[in-house]
Amino acid sequence: MTQNNQPLGGNTMPRFGGPATMMRLPSQDTAAGLDVCFVGVPMDIGTSNRPGTRLGPRQIRDESRMLRPYNMATGAAPFDSLRVADLGDVPINTFDLKKSVQIIEDHYHAILKHDVIPLTLGGDHTLSWPILKAIKAKHGPVALIHIDAHADTNENMFGEEVAHGCPFRRAHEDGCLINDKVFQIGLRGTGYAPADFDWGRERGWKVIPAEACWHKSLSPLMDKIRAMIGDTPVYLTFDIDSLDPAYAPGTGTAEIGGLTMAQGMEIVRGCAGLNIVGADLVEVSPPYDMPGNTAVAGAGLLFEMLCALPGVPRGGAAPRSDIAF
Amino acid sequence: MTQNNQPLGGNTMPRFGGPATMMRLPSQDTAAGLDVCFVGVPMDIGTSNRPGTRLGPRQIRDESRMLRPYNMATGAAPFDSLRVADLGDVPINTFDLKKSVQIIEDHYHAILKHDVIPLTLGGDHTLSWPILKAIKAKHGPVALIHIDAHADTNENMFGEEVAHGCPFRRAHEDGCLINDKVFQIGLRGTGYAPADFDWGRERGWKVIPAEACWHKSLSPLMDKIRAMIGDTPVYLTFDIDSLDPAYAPGTGTAEIGGLTMAQGMEIVRGCAGLNIVGADLVEVSPPYDMPGNTAVAGAGLLFEMLCALPGVPRGGAAPRSDIAF
Amino acid sequence: MTQNNQPLGGNTMPRFGGPATMMRLPSQDTAAGLDVCFVGVPMDIGTSNRPGTRLGPRQIRDESRMLRPYNMATGAAPFDSLRVADLGDVPINTFDLKKSVQIIEDHYHAILKHDVIPLTLGGDHTLSWPILKAIKAKHGPVALIHIDAHADTNENMFGEEVAHGCPFRRAHEDGCLINDKVFQIGLRGTGYAPADFDWGRERGWKVIPAEACWHKSLSPLMDKIRAMIGDTPVYLTFDIDSLDPAYAPGTGTAEIGGLTMAQGMEIVRGCAGLNIVGADLVEVSPPYDMPGNTAVAGAGLLFEMLCALPGVPRGGAAPRSDIAF
Amino acid sequence: MTQNNQPLGGNTMPRFGGPATMMRLPSQDTAAGLDVCFVGVPMDIGTSNRPGTRLGPRQIRDESRMLRPYNMATGAAPFDSLRVADLGDVPINTFDLKKSVQIIEDHYHAILKHDVIPLTLGGDHTLSWPILKAIKAKHGPVALIHIDAHADTNENMFGEEVAHGCPFRRAHEDGCLINDKVFQIGLRGTGYAPADFDWGRERGWKVIPAEACWHKSLSPLMDKIRAMIGDTPVYLTFDIDSLDPAYAPGTGTAEIGGLTMAQGMEIVRGCAGLNIVGADLVEVSPPYDMPGNTAVAGAGLLFEMLCALPGVPRGGAAPRSDIAF
Amino acid sequence: MTQNNQPLGGNTMPRFGGPATMMRLPSQDTAAGLDVCFVGVPMDIGTSNRPGTRLGPRQIRDESRMLRPYNMATGAAPFDSLRVADLGDVPINTFDLKKSVQIIEDHYHAILKHDVIPLTLGGDHTLSWPILKAIKAKHGPVALIHIDAHADTNENMFGEEVAHGCPFRRAHEDGCLINDKVFQIGLRGTGYAPADFDWGRERGWKVIPAEACWHKSLSPLMDKIRAMIGDTPVYLTFDIDSLDPAYAPGTGTAEIGGLTMAQGMEIVRGCAGLNIVGADLVEVSPPYDMPGNTAVAGAGLLFEMLCALPGVPRGGAAPRSDIAF
Amino acid sequence: MTQNNQPLGGNTMPRFGGPATMMRLPSQDTAAGLDVCFVGVPMDIGTSNRPGTRLGPRQIRDESRMLRPYNMATGAAPFDSLRVADLGDVPINTFDLKKSVQIIEDHYHAILKHDVIPLTLGGDHTLSWPILKAIKAKHGPVALIHIDAHADTNENMFGEEVAHGCPFRRAHEDGCLINDKVFQIGLRGTGYAPADFDWGRERGWKVIPAEACWHKSLSPLMDKIRAMIGDTPVYLTFDIDSLDPAYAPGTGTAEIGGLTMAQGMEIVRGCAGLNIVGADLVEVSPPYDMPGNTAVAGAGLLFEMLCALPGVPRGGAAPRSDIAF
Repeated sequence: MTQNNQPLGGNTMPRFGGPATMMRLPSQDTAAGLDVCFVGVPMDIGTSNRPGTRLGPRQIRDESRMLRPYNMATGAAPFDSLRVADLGDVPINTFDLKKSVQIIEDHYHAILKHDVIPLTLGGDHTLSWPILKAIKAKHGPVALIHIDAHADTNENMFGEEVAHGCPFRRAHEDGCLINDKVFQIGLRGTGYAPADFDWGRERGWKVIPAEACWHKSLSPLMDKIRAMIGDTPVYLTFDIDSLDPAYAPGTGTAEIGGLTMAQGMEIVRGCAGLNIVGADLVEVSPPYDMPGNTAVAGAGLLFEMLCALPGVPRGGAAPRSDIAF
Repeated sequence: MTQNNQPLGGNTMPRFGGPATMMRLPSQDTAAGLDVCFVGVPMDIGTSNRPGTRLGPRQIRDESRMLRPYNMATGAAPFDSLRVADLGDVPINTFDLKKSVQIIEDHYHAILKHDVIPLTLGGDHTLSWPILKAIKAKHGPVALIHIDAHADTNENMFGEEVAHGCPFRRAHEDGCLINDKVFQIGLRGTGYAPADFDWGRERGWKVIPAEACWHKSLSPLMDKIRAMIGDTPVYLTFDIDSLDPAYAPGTGTAEIGGLTMAQGMEIVRGCAGLNIVGADLVEVSPPYDMPGNTAVAGAGLLFEMLCALPGVPRGGAAPRSDIAF
Repeated sequence: MTQNNQPLGGNTMPRFGGPATMMRLPSQDTAAGLDVCFVGVPMDIGTSNRPGTRLGPRQIRDESRMLRPYNMATGAAPFDSLRVADLGDVPINTFDLKKSVQIIEDHYHAILKHDVIPLTLGGDHTLSWPILKAIKAKHGPVALIHIDAHADTNENMFGEEVAHGCPFRRAHEDGCLINDKVFQIGLRGTGYAPADFDWGRERGWKVIPAEACWHKSLSPLMDKIRAMIGDTPVYLTFDIDSLDPAYAPGTGTAEIGGLTMAQGMEIVRGCAGLNIVGADLVEVSPPYDMPGNTAVAGAGLLFEMLCALPGVPRGGAAPRSDIAF
Repeated sequence: MTQNNQPLGGNTMPRFGGPATMMRLPSQDTAAGLDVCFVGVPMDIGTSNRPGTRLGPRQIRDESRMLRPYNMATGAAPFDSLRVADLGDVPINTFDLKKSVQIIEDHYHAILKHDVIPLTLGGDHTLSWPILKAIKAKHGPVALIHIDAHADTNENMFGEEVAHGCPFRRAHEDGCLINDKVFQIGLRGTGYAPADFDWGRERGWKVIPAEACWHKSLSPLMDKIRAMIGDTPVYLTFDIDSLDPAYAPGTGTAEIGGLTMAQGMEIVRGCAGLNIVGADLVEVSPPYDMPGNTAVAGAGLLFEMLCALPGVPRGGAAPRSDIAF
Repeated sequence: MTQNNQPLGGNTMPRFGGPATMMRLPSQDTAAGLDVCFVGVPMDIGTSNRPGTRLGPRQIRDESRMLRPYNMATGAAPFDSLRVADLGDVPINTFDLKKSVQIIEDHYHAILKHDVIPLTLGGDHTLSWPILKAIKAKHGPVALIHIDAHADTNENMFGEEVAHGCPFRRAHEDGCLINDKVFQIGLRGTGYAPADFDWGRERGWKVIPAEACWHKSLSPLMDKIRAMIGDTPVYLTFDIDSLDPAYAPGTGTAEIGGLTMAQGMEIVRGCAGLNIVGADLVEVSPPYDMPGNTAVAGAGLLFEMLCALPGVPRGGAAPRSDIAF
Repeated sequence: MTQNNQPLGGNTMPRFGGPATMMRLPSQDTAAGLDVCFVGVPMDIGTSNRPGTRLGPRQIRDESRMLRPYNMATGAAPFDSLRVADLGDVPINTFDLKKSVQIIEDHYHAILKHDVIPLTLGGDHTLSWPILKAIKAKHGPVALIHIDAHADTNENMFGEEVAHGCPFRRAHEDGCLINDKVFQIGLRGTGYAPADFDWGRERGWKVIPAEACWHKSLSPLMDKIRAMIGDTPVYLTFDIDSLDPAYAPGTGTAEIGGLTMAQGMEIVRGCAGLNIVGADLVEVSPPYDMPGNTAVAGAGLLFEMLCALPGVPRGGAAPRSDIAF
């Protein structure tokens, strides 16, 4: 019986040493033999405001070094049941966004020849479109849980159909999404027209704007979403700018009034039980992340995604307080 | 029929290009023909701790570049009805605070010869005093909604009557304020005497300390304040340090335990329906605002102020969630 | 009658000048004649991830310069009744952690020969162990209120029994703690085993994980804890990483999903009425605290600790809002 | 007689206020009536390592605010004889590098319909290629003074012919350059082949590597270069990474061992007397330029370029020391 | 016989602990019994561009913690012969520059009642004027060695005679300076008129512009200056912006092309043998000095000043190389 | 015939992607089959002032991503003849400096069982001592070229014999060094006694203080040093703080007046021809290295070390200028 890969422990190598892979896991070149793989997409040429997400995968990996193998809140023990490794980065063409999108799609087709769930470290949000195309080729259209400040359903940006504000419109056009199982959480801010968020609604998507989330737990929301999705394969895409800039300062299109980190964690933890077939964490921009905590957040949320995957044993229920209040 | 000024759009010029005016609006030298004007007051010589607000107007303008013309949460469409431009900065005398206060007052007298609502980019809070004097000259005494960590009603600081801790005491002495319509929200921290916040109360002002705001929505509070103010002309002054330093790290006299950004937005949005005759956003200090997000916050709140002005059409009600929870 | 020491006021010396002592209080070499002393422990060689807490005491003192003598929320007037001074730093041996622990213990034995309550500016969390040993020597075993992201009850780290992840296990072994009066608030994150937080529970300790604190006030919790502790001497240890990184970015082992600053303040304020015999504020790491606000938070929480001490007159009740909502 | 445009003076508006244009000059939409224009090209999608030059024009303009109208070292008084304004930014397509290159070329064709010398604020070095094409259309092939750490003559990067490592190879292929009048100063670092710098040499270009510049003045070099160029129209392109990272930390492909700032200034000042028909300053990356001094350097060098233009009166000789040593 | 004060050693207290005084020396309230005193002037309200020098004294003291008592290059052993302490800060009025200037003058009159040499930690350069007035009252007119990027002889700034661009014109008018013994080293940059640096020259001052210093040692210059000054009392004023921004990034009016640090040290070391009666180090601005190295530079230069004072034993000649080359 | 390892090229994977190994080389667990290995020692518990070098190896590797395989200045082509890989980090015990020193020594004994030259990425300078012990075990006593601001020959620090100020005294005591072939370059700053640098001299070591290096090339010095060392095995240790803080701001014990980067490169390049048996680059401290350029410098210097090793073909002589001046 093979022992699964384990994150390199802090009692074996100091946290600030060892390989700069995700969770200091072993790296490998292909997804062969894996249940889950981490993949980096070092790209920012799809961004429209501040740059920097090209360095996101490197920084998230670096700051993932504190993550230990067990989730104290949910009891999840992902490495007890899953074989996980870091597949490194997709070699995008940083001088040509359209070619990069094709490179990503091809790369994920190759990954998905294996029976593996890819968890992606972005990179700008453009990357979700080619990944969803590869996901569709394997799984058919999927449900989508989309946490973001922005709808990312622009018809185009500056006349271009490929940009970080358009991926879910493109994915829709390509038949990747099941319209009545698309959920957009955290939308807010300003727009070009008052109806900017209604494009999805007109297709049956559900929008839960940030303001509807203020001052309360999102666990009840996730209960409803899980019920609405059922067993359908689902893709989870988490734009770090869904969080308020207080929680994720290092990002390119910051919008005030966002989700709290606790809410972000409730969302991802609330995905446990779903049939997740892929997920990404995007828009961490290290040059704007001085002490590195946005990368810490990105790494932590990716770990929460891992813990929410099908087949992960969960030792306990919700975190237990020894004093009721 | 004249087309109103519009913010320069991201499909015309990348967000990181174009003029560094507020919202990339046209600039003009006087307020002639405008309904609303943005004005910068680049001043920090009234500050008592960290400096830097002299660069606030520049940085707020720079980081306002992401703002699009419509408010997705409130449906406000300010540019559909209002003519707005950026009037540039007041040429304060940075070597003499007292002269600067006079320069500001004179400058706003000139602006207010036009039928225009000035929205001011600070600068330190000293500036609210001379602006209120100019406001009074045009509108008479006004109601005041004052969001701040500090009461700013010191008799003096270091023996000086002109300083960023004194503007509302000075404004009161000059008859600018209607005492039973003054509201101070977010006060907290330490003081020179336990009764520091009571000076206003003794004059009929209402104090809502930060602690009273913790863990809940401020929309009910704003409902009550709107009812108490009615149609009276009101001036809105928002010190960014009212927010917790998590949400606005780049400021000079940070106080822990402040408002959340959601609460700050509820306050400003809750001003819609009032007869606002002027407003300011003060105390953004760029040297302490590494990734620039405090300026993003300042710019966003100024846009919310614009959206809350009289005469702005509002397409919808509170932000709608497609799932109730 | 002797006038107590007072913080140097902002009307006597600008906030950015004057001595860089805690609250710009007088410094003295011994605790003679004092009721309370601030003590720095400039140490980071017990940290396991990011370094930098060695500079914590210097930075906390620097950023304490804004603190005025009265607590506006609680009405506490600590300097009206307590003689307080800054004792400077413990001369730890930065090249040998084990020797440093002994130096700290010896130093606190010397301090505690006086009838004084030490409030410690850390420094990494290792320091709580030797302080607790000195506290025990004077007061016997104590109750413990421990606010932290981590349980800090590892048997060892990298084979070492002295490290910032072990102090409370060591303190327990040394008989410093009263097991049914130990409270750990804010624990969260990842672990080496699902039962990591249960070591304390098995000894009767109460764990209140961060998730149990989300979206609500902790005042009811503190009411219960006060009732459970009663008159027993209690030590308060506040690891700044108990707070979410949004509120305390400058720390070494940041964990997402933590307490809000308001909750942190509710905890410390909720200690008023207890028989506190010592307290510390640890893990502020200035190199990761660009604008200095984590040090502002550390300084503010230390002031709140001072305000919560026995014998401090409290002028008012909870902060009063002039408008109910 | 028309008074030329003048930079807004510090005695009229504080340096930290006023318009964020280059040198706080007036802005205008076209080059009509100008002798010299500043133009921004906010682009970084041609970069291969760190991003951020898209914000270069904004930051250079911001930090140009200290520049006064006279050059104390050379006596140059550019505004006494030249009409200068800031033309704003080229609206590049940030999602498509190849289209952006065409937009830039078209934009400069339009500018050069006027008899004006464009001074460009970059932006990444890709931009020099389309500008040189527009320059050639007006002036025919030109001499080139190219200050850089890199030769930027790659055949391609990642298979792409358009990238910031290729512009001068492209310009050569397009017949923009006079081969025996091309000078590359400051080249250094690592390469893909030992002959990387010889591609130009084989075409008659002169390479002056950084090492040949160490520890001495470059004025003698510039004397020789001026003699070799004579009256030929010349384009000047200054990549800020030619300077050692000590002098220009905020750039994307930093190479150690570069020129000093004094040397950089000697080069630009040494261009006075040449028939400069255009110039650019590229590769300032604000996210990596914490205190903004690389932008200060970029702004200062652009001013030196302005001072070196044909027709600028120069009041004195080399800077005079009152003590010989 | 009394042992002189000594800096607190690193073998007694770690460098990052201990009092945040200059060189961790003892502090005292008056200059009684001292030969030399360090004095802070926490002021930035005289600055015209970036603020922040108000925090200069605090930061210079903090970063002086590495300084040991002996100068390895010059052999100077200042504490062997001089009694030195830190007098703390001058309580300037940060809301009124003109009053602050009077406060500073009065403060130095009080200090100079003692037979002491004040070494001042700035603060903006405005402070040199009132200090020179106090110096004149004690010593009569003095020679001046002024190292700076700027002449600081403006008639006024924004109409004000008190500002950081004017102190030496004011000092001249007040008869503080001996005209044929004034030396301005490092001047450069841009000006309002080509003759800006000639105002001093017309009075007999000697200007040594930065360009005259490029690429060579300044020791020969200092030999000449010492000969020209002879035994006359001399005041030394070192604006950190005399150095190139590479060496001193944290300052408010950075000018490119400045002195190297080696040259700055040659100047100060070259003052040994002169009859220095006072000195200052000004314009360190901590908010623009991320890693703190400008403060390290300021502290180091102040130590070099101390080492250059009359009566300091110097154990050796110029630093000896064991290999000639 | 086996193809040597090659750095991952920028045309295969963008510079900001790919593995975060040194130069993006392959990693391996042992030195088997290698000519040269890079090894990280993530340690800062031997530092006496600012911490952070524990993260040095990670950051140097990250910022080495721009390095291409050929040295344009020297023509060195290291990968044409040498098999090189990254061995990862030494698992030091971050809670015990003395044990860490033993771990390092053991680790290098294991490495040196292979016929390999280790190039070490520090970490604090304490690490040179255990490495030198392992070097001696294999090669006997060696010559030493030591570039540093500090002599690092303290008898002890704070009573400890193991600290970053002591390694070369310890190495001497252990018989690791050939006294008449030890060269210390760049020493400067302050000391505990005027004779601090003479301890080595008394043993025959040669000291070349920084001041002796100012304003000139160090190539002549290196010519002499090479002649004095001849064929003796030599160890090269480069403390980044030998450079002036302008060139290497991110370090812990910054000393003003240091070497320029050009001089640092001349030293390392001047080692070509020597029989180097090991080398290290130490004291890069990422938390103080905001834009990462000190790590760029560290990486670049390590590459220069690699290029200077025995057996590396060098295609050309000194860098050639096409124009003599």
